[in-house]
Amino acid sequence: MRAEYINPFIESTVDVFKTMLGANVQRTGLSVNETFCPQYDITGIIGLSGKAHGDVVISFEADVALEATRTLMGGTYTDLDEDVVDTVGELTNMIAGNAKTQLQSLEMSLALPTVIVGHNHSIRFPSKVKPLSLPFHCEWGNFSIEVGLIESPVDAHIVIG
Amino acid sequence: MRAEYINPFIESTVDVFKTMLGANVQRTGLSVNETFCPQYDITGIIGLSGKAHGDVVISFEADVALEATRTLMGGTYTDLDEDVVDTVGELTNMIAGNAKTQLQSLEMSLALPTVIVGHNHSIRFPSKVKPLSLPFHCEWGNFSIEVGLIESPVDAHIVIG
Repeated sequence: MRAEYINPFIESTVDVFKTMLGANVQRTGLSVNETFCPQYDITGIIGLSGKAHGDVVISFEADVALEATRTLMGGTYTDLDEDVVDTVGELTNMIAGNAKTQLQSLEMSLALPTVIVGHNHSIRFPSKVKPLSLPFHCEWGNFSIEVGLIESPVDAHIVIG
Repeated sequence: MRAEYINPFIESTVDVFKTMLGANVQRTGLSVNETFCPQYDITGIIGLSGKAHGDVVISFEADVALEATRTLMGGTYTDLDEDVVDTVGELTNMIAGNAKTQLQSLEMSLALPTVIVGHNHSIRFPSKVKPLSLPFHCEWGNFSIEVGLIESPVDAHIVIG
């Protein structure tokens, strides 16, 4: 995918953590992921489609997801329960949504997030897609973002006459 | 989600298996999934967005995915390798794509499929979504489809003057 598509996702992640969670995050790398995504304990996936289409996969260490839920909802969380699932889905939705707003020329809309709980599995993109992988660190632990976008084929328009 | 949205997914599944794989499938049930999706060995997820948005999750027993790959690509497959991942992604894409064509009024477009290999995890929809769950059986084994769609909020248009 084009490198210029990735900056909006980096900025959006920093902004969402700062604004919604009061947390400072640092990006600790950037790589093209040729194989499969690194997985932590709970992972949000959301699809984007429009003039480009693809997916954003955000995987959190349990402590990051639990503290984010505590910050957003109040109370104390020790298990990856429904509130934590909803928080991870909503963070995934916000990060992808803010990035999409910065990529207006692609006219993308968002699907719904799905959330995967557990880490004895791997998440793959189709082999034609080479997602970019962004590891992040914050005071609560680590999380990572993978973004795989490809430009959509232009519809053929045949004009006769 | 509305019940009338589910029939196109059932028809599309039967058609794709028949046309692409020469396999007859039987649907063995239908339920509203209040908790999380049943998971087999390899699972494709694809997002849809437009006047409704949501996800289709299709989970296959390993034997179904391996035989489908053998049928589409030729050769023999014993591991859930990249060819099998691509086949599961493509079947997910085709089933969702054919169903979307039958749901033209929703003007949905497809994201990219992601594929999850492994089964020690659960896949959740946001708690506001109650996906419909469709178990299927074919000569190679079992697979299941979950569809969760919600209607998109209509943009507010304010006309002054």
